[in-house]
Amino acid sequence: MPKQAIRTAVKVDLNKPAWEQPQLHNRWHPDIPFSCKVQPGEVVNVECLDWTGGQIGNNDSADDIKYCDLSRIHYLSGPIEVEGAEPGDVVVVEIQDVQPFPEQPWGYCAIFDKNNGGGFLDSHFPNAAKAIWDFEGIFCSSRHIPGVRFPGLIHPGIMGCMPSQELLDTWNEREKELVGYHASIGTDRVVANLPLEKFSHAGSADSDSAAKVAKEGARTIPPREHGGNCDIKNLSRGSKSYLPVYVKGAGLSIGDLHFSQGDGEISFCGAIEMAGIITIKCEIIKNGVKDMCMKNPMYIPGPVEPHYGPSRYLTFEGLSVDETGKQHYLDVNVAYKQTCLQFIEYFKKFGYSGEQLYILLSCAPVQGHIAAIVDIPNACTTLGVPVDIFEFECLPKEGGFEKIITSDCAFSSGK
Amino acid sequence: MPKQAIRTAVKVDLNKPAWEQPQLHNRWHPDIPFSCKVQPGEVVNVECLDWTGGQIGNNDSADDIKYCDLSRIHYLSGPIEVEGAEPGDVVVVEIQDVQPFPEQPWGYCAIFDKNNGGGFLDSHFPNAAKAIWDFEGIFCSSRHIPGVRFPGLIHPGIMGCMPSQELLDTWNEREKELVGYHASIGTDRVVANLPLEKFSHAGSADSDSAAKVAKEGARTIPPREHGGNCDIKNLSRGSKSYLPVYVKGAGLSIGDLHFSQGDGEISFCGAIEMAGIITIKCEIIKNGVKDMCMKNPMYIPGPVEPHYGPSRYLTFEGLSVDETGKQHYLDVNVAYKQTCLQFIEYFKKFGYSGEQLYILLSCAPVQGHIAAIVDIPNACTTLGVPVDIFEFECLPKEGGFEKIITSDCAFSSGK
Amino acid sequence: MPKQAIRTAVKVDLNKPAWEQPQLHNRWHPDIPFSCKVQPGEVVNVECLDWTGGQIGNNDSADDIKYCDLSRIHYLSGPIEVEGAEPGDVVVVEIQDVQPFPEQPWGYCAIFDKNNGGGFLDSHFPNAAKAIWDFEGIFCSSRHIPGVRFPGLIHPGIMGCMPSQELLDTWNEREKELVGYHASIGTDRVVANLPLEKFSHAGSADSDSAAKVAKEGARTIPPREHGGNCDIKNLSRGSKSYLPVYVKGAGLSIGDLHFSQGDGEISFCGAIEMAGIITIKCEIIKNGVKDMCMKNPMYIPGPVEPHYGPSRYLTFEGLSVDETGKQHYLDVNVAYKQTCLQFIEYFKKFGYSGEQLYILLSCAPVQGHIAAIVDIPNACTTLGVPVDIFEFECLPKEGGFEKIITSDCAFSSGK
Amino acid sequence: MPKQAIRTAVKVDLNKPAWEQPQLHNRWHPDIPFSCKVQPGEVVNVECLDWTGGQIGNNDSADDIKYCDLSRIHYLSGPIEVEGAEPGDVVVVEIQDVQPFPEQPWGYCAIFDKNNGGGFLDSHFPNAAKAIWDFEGIFCSSRHIPGVRFPGLIHPGIMGCMPSQELLDTWNEREKELVGYHASIGTDRVVANLPLEKFSHAGSADSDSAAKVAKEGARTIPPREHGGNCDIKNLSRGSKSYLPVYVKGAGLSIGDLHFSQGDGEISFCGAIEMAGIITIKCEIIKNGVKDMCMKNPMYIPGPVEPHYGPSRYLTFEGLSVDETGKQHYLDVNVAYKQTCLQFIEYFKKFGYSGEQLYILLSCAPVQGHIAAIVDIPNACTTLGVPVDIFEFECLPKEGGFEKIITSDCAFSSGK
Repeated sequence: MPKQAIRTAVKVDLNKPAWEQPQLHNRWHPDIPFSCKVQPGEVVNVECLDWTGGQIGNNDSADDIKYCDLSRIHYLSGPIEVEGAEPGDVVVVEIQDVQPFPEQPWGYCAIFDKNNGGGFLDSHFPNAAKAIWDFEGIFCSSRHIPGVRFPGLIHPGIMGCMPSQELLDTWNEREKELVGYHASIGTDRVVANLPLEKFSHAGSADSDSAAKVAKEGARTIPPREHGGNCDIKNLSRGSKSYLPVYVKGAGLSIGDLHFSQGDGEISFCGAIEMAGIITIKCEIIKNGVKDMCMKNPMYIPGPVEPHYGPSRYLTFEGLSVDETGKQHYLDVNVAYKQTCLQFIEYFKKFGYSGEQLYILLSCAPVQGHIAAIVDIPNACTTLGVPVDIFEFECLPKEGGFEKIITSDCAFSSGK
Repeated sequence: MPKQAIRTAVKVDLNKPAWEQPQLHNRWHPDIPFSCKVQPGEVVNVECLDWTGGQIGNNDSADDIKYCDLSRIHYLSGPIEVEGAEPGDVVVVEIQDVQPFPEQPWGYCAIFDKNNGGGFLDSHFPNAAKAIWDFEGIFCSSRHIPGVRFPGLIHPGIMGCMPSQELLDTWNEREKELVGYHASIGTDRVVANLPLEKFSHAGSADSDSAAKVAKEGARTIPPREHGGNCDIKNLSRGSKSYLPVYVKGAGLSIGDLHFSQGDGEISFCGAIEMAGIITIKCEIIKNGVKDMCMKNPMYIPGPVEPHYGPSRYLTFEGLSVDETGKQHYLDVNVAYKQTCLQFIEYFKKFGYSGEQLYILLSCAPVQGHIAAIVDIPNACTTLGVPVDIFEFECLPKEGGFEKIITSDCAFSSGK
Repeated sequence: MPKQAIRTAVKVDLNKPAWEQPQLHNRWHPDIPFSCKVQPGEVVNVECLDWTGGQIGNNDSADDIKYCDLSRIHYLSGPIEVEGAEPGDVVVVEIQDVQPFPEQPWGYCAIFDKNNGGGFLDSHFPNAAKAIWDFEGIFCSSRHIPGVRFPGLIHPGIMGCMPSQELLDTWNEREKELVGYHASIGTDRVVANLPLEKFSHAGSADSDSAAKVAKEGARTIPPREHGGNCDIKNLSRGSKSYLPVYVKGAGLSIGDLHFSQGDGEISFCGAIEMAGIITIKCEIIKNGVKDMCMKNPMYIPGPVEPHYGPSRYLTFEGLSVDETGKQHYLDVNVAYKQTCLQFIEYFKKFGYSGEQLYILLSCAPVQGHIAAIVDIPNACTTLGVPVDIFEFECLPKEGGFEKIITSDCAFSSGK
Repeated sequence: MPKQAIRTAVKVDLNKPAWEQPQLHNRWHPDIPFSCKVQPGEVVNVECLDWTGGQIGNNDSADDIKYCDLSRIHYLSGPIEVEGAEPGDVVVVEIQDVQPFPEQPWGYCAIFDKNNGGGFLDSHFPNAAKAIWDFEGIFCSSRHIPGVRFPGLIHPGIMGCMPSQELLDTWNEREKELVGYHASIGTDRVVANLPLEKFSHAGSADSDSAAKVAKEGARTIPPREHGGNCDIKNLSRGSKSYLPVYVKGAGLSIGDLHFSQGDGEISFCGAIEMAGIITIKCEIIKNGVKDMCMKNPMYIPGPVEPHYGPSRYLTFEGLSVDETGKQHYLDVNVAYKQTCLQFIEYFKKFGYSGEQLYILLSCAPVQGHIAAIVDIPNACTTLGVPVDIFEFECLPKEGGFEKIITSDCAFSSGK
């Protein structure tokens, strides 16, 4: 039978508040009703809002970032019932394409204010900043970060099946314990976001269920064993994800589309965030969880990643000795932070501001590797930056570099 | 002028104790005399013993691993004087080739006993184990880990210039402080190896200098801002490393050759360790440290890495929730440990022992990425394993897998 | 200024005859009026019909192929005026994306009847046959050629600027001479298609111009020094083509979109032909023709080609000794034919028909290389087939292969 | 059992005339005695002279090229008996490594005089010229062609099993017929080299056999269905070749090692020719010829080819319209010639001579593709040149290029 145009399983309205759209939700909870059903093997389109549900504008101020309401996020499309999926099965999601909406060919990447979201380097860059990225087919460029242009390794930041009540309880318990511990030692850093009733959106749930979801529903920020907000940049076109199933029908939800992201998504709003359309096909592997000893998802990347050849990656190194010279014990986080800072210092020589580079590092397809993790006391990490994303020559050379970048990214009015 | 055969700048004797060879040393100290001199632009061969100086044999027992004397390591070739290099310069080392000795076409990878070296997963695998790898041209395979075969991404684990006295002092201070802190809180884990007189080898130093080196010389285990034991698997044929210079003449030392290694070198003796010959060319970038804001080394990989295509990587994910279910705050180490354990569980289904997989993971060219590091409280890491290193079909499928591996790696007699 | 949705410079109507659409044309001639204008640097969408203007249907008969009217083809979108381009300049066309129409997610690949079009292997496969390919995001598969599935290396088969009258005259002259020569030696093979008034479509030309175009206009089948029907599979997303300009305004035309094609496009209707949308940006290099000694176009492929790793290509070889055992002198055509036949024989073992394989070879992303062209008397060519496009194991092995394919492609009713 | 150093199955003496070494031969004939035996699965080294047996020197004159005796070539190492191989089997040769001799780290590439060997572009470049290439690990560079440097895609130009008498007769017959035909139409071009008694070297054959070999033995210049002089640049480290067996014991011979070569090996002495050592392992597929329908060899490239990313290939196009403007019918040879000439014209702008570029094109790892072969009357070929082999920026740009190359290759004294 001739092939028809691909069915759109989830449709969104870009001009309507996210919380008024019943096919979206922003908590993980088994009581959120399915928003649609797909057959194994069926190819469907799923439309998605950007993660904030449209809070960020294509303009030259970072005020929308500074005051972004993070209790609303992430608006996900689903849950999608996968016919026949049962607890213990594995749903295989093949991502066949991801595209921005033709009528909205742009996205954004930003630094959150340290007091509203923060990020990996928030002690170095405490203020909100923003860059708008324009899409030209597979490429993107930004008026806020001149001199770079690259093809997107486009992907969803979030993909996962609904937890069972039991799994949800486990999550809530262990995260509560973490928060409790940090409170007990007097940390003032937010270490986890526990369930929050405010702005909970339970899709098409009735009021009783919605109340339960609001009360117990897991927040969407962390990745967890179902997948969730993994922010894996290589889950792009052609990839296959193997996701454990915990409830009958699976309840697959997707969202937080990224035009591009670097390993670590280090500025937190660190990918090029966008609204768009993802084309998927789901298959089921019966009893896959046990047969493949799955605790967390697995995936196989697709065959069409942008590729530059290994010799086109300028690679920075960092160790677990922090900025103050203090020695840490095999701490990969400290090492990766140093690696990122090293990149930033290098490229500042060309005239970029630290904020521009922090944003760039978050959203360009940089490779963050754990190089060595056993050579006490120093962990060593590397950060490979494809030099072909720059429109100027940036390889090391004698005599230093000329400043050629003269404009900056968007800041909040307060700065 | 016609090209001559390449000069061997450092020669070693495979049949003589490492500590009797004055062109080798096993500490970092500015008073270790240069063992030879090279001109900028000159291509030379540098011969290297394996990191232990020959303590490990091609046999089927892991006793040599269990009782390996770690106070002796690493035996490095050098220091090499690079004519004209001065503090503040950068030495650019192009690695033109790395080869095992033709007469010794094998290497080893091992798990150290938890009480002698340990490793990333030593609480899961506390006992010594070993795999011998045979080299067939670019390929390697192991009688101790059947069913896999892959080309080496061959590289030196250690490369770096001699520290100045000032830098050395900084290292010793900060590491001592770390040890002191951990002692104060009662940890019994060895968190750093401070200077140790026993078995210090200061090359051709006279007895006064040798005594100073023994007393102050930095141990070779950790990577530090000069490079050192970075264990970066991609520093292979064709790569260029940018190394800061701290003393007149640079004092470049190289060693710890690896036929192959995975990101993290997780079992500590985690690469395929070998003796061999590295061909290098050094150039100097005057004042490069300041001009390029270098704190740590940078590098550009070579153009001949083994490549499989992205869709041939089976990729595992892990989070910062540990084996007991405890939630950690954005801890990449915990996440990477979980990712590694997930790989091990998956491949056990084919009949491998945990030790075989722990070793394989350490030495096969697996990609360890920091996927997301800002989604509180969970860090997410990924581990990409090239499926083409396996001689059987290993991709996920319904119905589970057959046990096909029936033999094991070498263990110590005590086990 | 915020980015708007991308402007569509050329729009087509899928439901209207191609010859009634004035923004299309099917001859090369300087008197065909521009159908629209673009600015250098402007990103635009250009819609295209399939090359036949819609003659081929999504069905299971090859009758439409058998009786396809080849005097109509190719319907191209344009000519597009590039503001400021002058003869001697070079227009740089960056292809930012190519997509099928969402409402028509399929294409076709076919074997022409030997008496209507023919193809590279028409003496072996003289009858019309057809395969419909369904698109699922970046992937395609065919009910007529089961067992294969691959991502498209999507591209336009035709791209070129309008010839000047002088260049056009040269083309007509040399091709007429070729036809004359072959007639003189009594060949009955069609060796070139000279200008043909029948079904000439001169876009929006008035009747006088249209008559001139019909009489003199170069047919669109061959590639020529302006580019034209180059059928280069790698002119895909992200590529940059450098095209010589011969008339003021350039007059760029595009068409013959392919979802995928193999090197050689050997069955003539040999790509996966489709209607769709191409997103381009044009820039001008002033005096580029002389400055870069351009006689023919040049290009740089994009960074997102599907890639499998070299070791995933099963590669066949062929020589300039033909099927009858006759020796030819360094004839690459003969060698490539043998190489293709070798591929066909190998895969027939799995149960495919010769026609299925001839079609597959034409449209899958196979690599056809000229390996050696100086070793008299034999030219040697190679054909690399990515094994990952097959859904079964197809590498050489002892014991031969099982027949697993049991259905065939579509044939014409006459067969 | 511990692995020993790899056995050398064929040893050569670099300082002794090739024709005095019985483990070498320069004709294909079943009566040439085996020079050694290998077991299936055994890894061995095979040493090889350069193809001319040492006629070419590391100097700055092309006189040795001009007067090179082509009746001597190619000196091959073997034939190697593969224990157990029988006619109809397939020998699988895994190339595990190829290396120059450490004491001879150089090779050469040359243009033959039109009257002694010639080459693809000999009507444009009729005189002998030469470039010496120095090897630095995986890299090579030439004092005769400054400004380029690249890693070798190192491989044997020749590999094949001995023909049966029957196959040999077929070869001789068909080539004789070709020569006869060309003589009959009065061509003065040498179209094939028939058996030649002069300088025939039949290895260790006794005088009777040697006489028979001299009289009937097939010359080694062309590739034939057994493989032979295929000059396929991708038969490099890690590749597997599937070679048909025609005589008991297979009689595998190898030689004509190349440090690097471009598709087509267009200047005939067109690779970087060298003496060296190849490491191989042979396996047997019983009855493989019939089971896999093999007429010609097949191969799978290795996983370690130098790779640059597709967007780093500047690609030239050419058509089957020759330099005089004459139209040819789908003639790939004409098209590839034009493509090569286009490359040469482009790079002449940087100051290179035509001879330098002709040589470079022959030996750098350029990709020659058959793009379109059905669009009558024009065949279209492409030539992709990796820009990263140049030490200067060579991509197209406005304003033309500066001449930066000021020295030339080596010529013969006659020129």
